[in-house]
Formats: sequence, C-alpha cells, structure tokens
Amino acid sequence: MMRTRAAVAMGPGKPLEVMEVNLEGPRKGEVLVEIKATGLCHTDEFTRSGDDPEGIFPAILGHEGAGVVIEVGEGVTSLEVGDHVIPLYTPECRECEYCLNPKTNLCQSIRSTQGAGLLPDGSTRFSMLDGTPIHHYMGCSTFANHTVVPEIALAKIRKDAPFDKVCYIGCGVTTGIGAVINTAKVEIGSTAIVFGLGGIGLNVIQGLRMAGADQIVGVDLNAGKVEMAEKFGMTHFVNPSEIEGDLVAHLVELTGGGADYTFDATGNVSVMRTALEAAHKGWGESIIIGVAPAGAEISTRPFQLVTGRSWRGTAFGGASGRTDVPKIVDWYMDGKIEIDPMITHKLSLDEINDGFHLMHEGKSIRAVVEY
Amino acid sequence: MMRTRAAVAMGPGKPLEVMEVNLEGPRKGEVLVEIKATGLCHTDEFTRSGDDPEGIFPAILGHEGAGVVIEVGEGVTSLEVGDHVIPLYTPECRECEYCLNPKTNLCQSIRSTQGAGLLPDGSTRFSMLDGTPIHHYMGCSTFANHTVVPEIALAKIRKDAPFDKVCYIGCGVTTGIGAVINTAKVEIGSTAIVFGLGGIGLNVIQGLRMAGADQIVGVDLNAGKVEMAEKFGMTHFVNPSEIEGDLVAHLVELTGGGADYTFDATGNVSVMRTALEAAHKGWGESIIIGVAPAGAEISTRPFQLVTGRSWRGTAFGGASGRTDVPKIVDWYMDGKIEIDPMITHKLSLDEINDGFHLMHEGKSIRAVVEY
Repeated sequence: MMRTRAAVAMGPGKPLEVMEVNLEGPRKGEVLVEIKATGLCHTDEFTRSGDDPEGIFPAILGHEGAGVVIEVGEGVTSLEVGDHVIPLYTPECRECEYCLNPKTNLCQSIRSTQGAGLLPDGSTRFSMLDGTPIHHYMGCSTFANHTVVPEIALAKIRKDAPFDKVCYIGCGVTTGIGAVINTAKVEIGSTAIVFGLGGIGLNVIQGLRMAGADQIVGVDLNAGKVEMAEKFGMTHFVNPSEIEGDLVAHLVELTGGGADYTFDATGNVSVMRTALEAAHKGWGESIIIGVAPAGAEISTRPFQLVTGRSWRGTAFGGASGRTDVPKIVDWYMDGKIEIDPMITHKLSLDEINDGFHLMHEGKSIRAVVEY
Repeated sequence: MMRTRAAVAMGPGKPLEVMEVNLEGPRKGEVLVEIKATGLCHTDEFTRSGDDPEGIFPAILGHEGAGVVIEVGEGVTSLEVGDHVIPLYTPECRECEYCLNPKTNLCQSIRSTQGAGLLPDGSTRFSMLDGTPIHHYMGCSTFANHTVVPEIALAKIRKDAPFDKVCYIGCGVTTGIGAVINTAKVEIGSTAIVFGLGGIGLNVIQGLRMAGADQIVGVDLNAGKVEMAEKFGMTHFVNPSEIEGDLVAHLVELTGGGADYTFDATGNVSVMRTALEAAHKGWGESIIIGVAPAGAEISTRPFQLVTGRSWRGTAFGGASGRTDVPKIVDWYMDGKIEIDPMITHKLSLDEINDGFHLMHEGKSIRAVVEY
C-alpha cells in the first residue's frame, strides 16, 4: 500500500478534489505506473459533469496518460520496471473473440469490470485515507500520479518520447488519425469533410493529410479555428452560419457530388445526419466519432443508404492499442504527425479544474497536466 | 410506328387498363424489345397505388421482364435482332463516373430522364391511340408486349433460358442475391438474419447459402413462410409474435452475440432498426433492401455505430446489370440457384390486376405475366 496524489471526482457536477489517496500494489496481471502527464478530454468532463448516465462516484478520472512502469504484478511478461507506457481504455488481450477478429478493435476481455469502475478481479486499488474505495475510470485513472492498470491495457512506447506530448496519443490523436486510416481506410486522392475542428477534428485532418486526401473540408461555427486547421491540412473551410440555404447542398456542390468520406467530431446528432447526407451518392461513407448526449438518436431517410451511403462509427480510432499506439508514437517522433501545437495549456494537478474551464470556454485544444 | 398491347396505369390508385397503344420504333442508341414475360413487383404496386410521391401518369409500369430484340436503332453495337435480353432499371453505360467506380452500381448516365418517365432524348415512344403520350417507367415498361429501351439498359442473356423464369432476375433475384454477394460480400462461415421472407428475403437466403453462411435466421410474422424459406436455406426461424420480451435480445442470443450480417427485406423502418441492432457488436453489418414509405425515417442511438456496427443499403443488389445479370442467368441454368418454386402464379396480360390482388393477399411470391 502506498499513497499518491490524485484529483478525485466525488460526485456528479462537483469540481475534482485534489487529495492524497491510498493505492494498493499491482496484483496478478497488473502493473503499477507512475503517470508523468495526462490530457483532459471531453469524455472526462462528460462524466465529471454528471451527464454520463453510467458515471460512478467517487472515481479517479483521466484516460489520456503516459508514464513509467514502477512495479509489475505476478505473471506480467510483456513489461518490466522502467518501461515507458501509455494506458489504454480499449485494451488488447490478443486472445478474445474480438481481438482475434481483424474487423474490430473492441477487446471485450475486461469490459464488464472496467465499465463498473473496477479492475478485472472486481476490486479497486484506490481508496480514501478513511478506507472508502475509489473507482477506477475507463481502466486508466490517469488523474492520479500513480495508478494500477492491467498489463493488457498498456502500450509500451519508446523511451525518448516526451510524456507531455505523447500522452495525447492515449485518446485524441489515435481516435482522430485512426478513424481515417483504420476505420474509413481512406485512399489517396479522396475527398473528405470533417465536422468540428476541435482536437479530434484536427487529428482527423492530419490523418487525412497522411492518407493523401485531395480535398479536406473543415466545418465549424468558429472561424477562429481556421488557422490551426489549415496548419494541419484543411484545404477548405465552411462556416454553416455563413451559408444561405441548405448546408448539405452547399457541401455536395463544394465536393463535386458529396465527399468520399465524412467524419463527425461534434457529438451532435443533427450534425451526424448532415455528415451522412453530405457523403457521395453511391459510395460515400460517414464515420461517427463524437459521443452523443445520453438518449440522443440519429435519423435519416433509408433512401440515403439505399443509394449507396454507409453509416459507420469508430471507437479509439479502430486502433488495437498495444500494436498501434507505439507506431503512432514513432510517427510523432519521426515528424510524420504533429502534436505540439495542439497542446495549448500545461497545468499542475492542483490546477486541473482550470483545464475544464478552458475546455468550456473553447480556449484550449488540449490542456495537459504534468505531475 | 407500331401498335402493341399494354397495361396502362392511368392514374394513382386506379386498376391498370389493358389496351392497344402506339409505339414508335427505336431511335439512336435504342432497342425495340418484344417482352415475353414480366414479373409483378411491389415497386410497381407502390407506384400504381399512388403511394409513390414521384409516380407519373399515364405510364406503362413493369420493370422485371425478359424478351427478344426485334429492331435496333442507329449506333447500337452490342445487340442484334434475335438476341434475348433482360431490361435493366439500373443501366450500365460503362462510361460515367459511377460505372467507372467499382464501389457502386448506380449508373447515372440516364437517371434524370428515366426518373421523369422519358427515354434519354427526353421523349416517350408510347402514346394513346389519340396521341396522348404515355410515360415510360424505370426505363423498362415491361407491362407492354413491346417496349423501347436504351441499349445500355439491356443485359444480353443466353437463348436457352426460359423467359417466364429469368424475367425474375430483372429485379427480385438479383436484388436479393446481389445484396449478399455484391453489397455485404458475406464470407464463408458467417451468421446472418433475414427480416421478411417474401420474394426478396428468399433470394437473400439463397444468396447466403451460395456464400456459405453457417447460420441463416429468417424472421417473419407469417409462419406459413417457413417451409419455402427452409427449402432455400433458412436454418432457424423466429416469429416475433411468439417472442416474449425484446426481439433484439432474442436474436443476439440466438446468433451468439449478434449476426455478422443482417438484411431488411420488409421496407419497415422499425424493422430496419431491429436489423441494425441485431448485428454483432464490433463488426456486424446491416443492409437495407426494402423501400420505405415516403417520408419514413430510420433512427437509432449513435452508440450502435460507434461500437462497430455498419448501416448500409443496396439497390438492384449492387449489380452492374449488363455484366452481372447474364452470370446470374447462368447460375440458374446450371442449378446453382432456384427460381421455379418462387414463380407461384402465371397470368395473361388481361389478368394483370389479379396479380396485384394476389400480392396484397400474401398468396403469391411472384406472379408472372406471359405474353
């Protein structure tokens, strides 16, 4: 049993409370990781705010981290003390029906306990100093300076990669780039539309640039996002508030009949419909990345699908984390992708609630807490 | 100018009127065909009934025919007098952006005139004896003993194939089998659920059998359809009216987690949702085949897609007609697929309205008019 510092979500809608907590050492198949940096993602805020109907409290949130292995539990063979790692909220056991099917990345081996805020043996490693258990979150809990994570939920990365940048590969970077290369499998010369130019949207855009897309249209209500999006590869910008008439018709005309691929990075179900209908008749694919509010539904006329559009979705960019995340770290280190301009704010753990304020104010792309 | 006999749709909701009509000979790029047999499809009835908001009257309906070339117009090179042909409501020009894209079969070269009930030069060949123009329908108008069709909308087939069976390949057979092999690209060993055991559903089932599916679940409210569906390859039957509790949960359990592929052959948007949600998490694909009522919309929670299901559609089974229809005729002649048991009724042109009554009463799978 050790103590570490963590930002604890005590209840829905409450600010996180930074405090000392107890942390038990790793059990069989588990690894103790010292988190060096963690990003703040909208999904953390979705749970903190109370909007997530499956939110559990108290919990240590955070799922976009990077750190160093401090101790390995019994039977751990793929990692050793001193390894640098990125925790994976989508693990990769390489043994379950899902891992063995090349069509999906949704490893199910520890899903039920992870969803319940527990480690695979059904217990928590975190507790309050008075002994009250604290739940894990998405199997990661990177808002703690130390955390315990199953071996199958850790990607081993190179040691020269900076923690305060590659932590973002733990969610946003992989989600955006992976949606393009793993889920949509965009071909060279394609046309694409990206709805929402936040962090995910920017990573979709740089994924499209890597994939060789000819036309990369960005759609956002905030013209302030144009400069950054162009830096990442956006070729055309559309502000829906400046379009007279039907947005779908405008986008179809701009892309010469609709885009080969469209991506929703907003989580707004109305935008998801626009994204589908702006895909090209005959072969356009629309990929949902954003997480919609609880109970929200997408809809369209089935004619949109019968005439050749496909409606799909992606989680963690279709990436198998232990296999793909180290490659994306290499791409960053080799300069094939950029991360630095997206890390707009650095905070200490004590300032973590400021990071959520920046998110709401639209002032940050990514705020990162460094321990 | 010749005369021929036709069943004319004079207005929405009216019975077809069998009468003598004028027919001009083929112009440039057109072919005069003597129709030998034609099936009656729900889509004809959708238009006849007045439910189709794009229906145009007067018109000669029918789009599931087979016949013989009587005369070719100027510039026609791929067909000659005496050739046996199946008219194609989805043409294949082999030159447009769509024909040149292997991801789609939706040739657009004559779409706008075809949708307006005209031949590509913007005129009709049919007229009343008083000179009033009669519109074409889906570019085929097989409810006439003779019709004029663009060369690019005719599949040349072998001469030993019986017209009264292979006419069904002009729509239902190709739509059902093609949804499996062209659109879904079902792999050997897959699991599948087919919603609706009418003519399309039966052809989906025999497509699945050809593709080597392990489990083929049929879903229908009418238990009277079981015997025929089993003959075509159905392995399990589910009658929703006999299921207590949630149908999706029942189907997910029956298929071991959801089906790899699900097909809607009902046109009911509520069934389309069930079909999507009964597809397997991670990789299940749901294909919409049925035509929904005007204005009806499909809906679901986006989470269904984000967790790996795909929602797609198919028109004419994804088939490129001039290329694929002759192959399907060969499969029938070689005994790889069955058609005969599905042709439940034979009618004369004078009895054509009886065919629609049989359709409404659920007594026919396919009624065929022989000239």
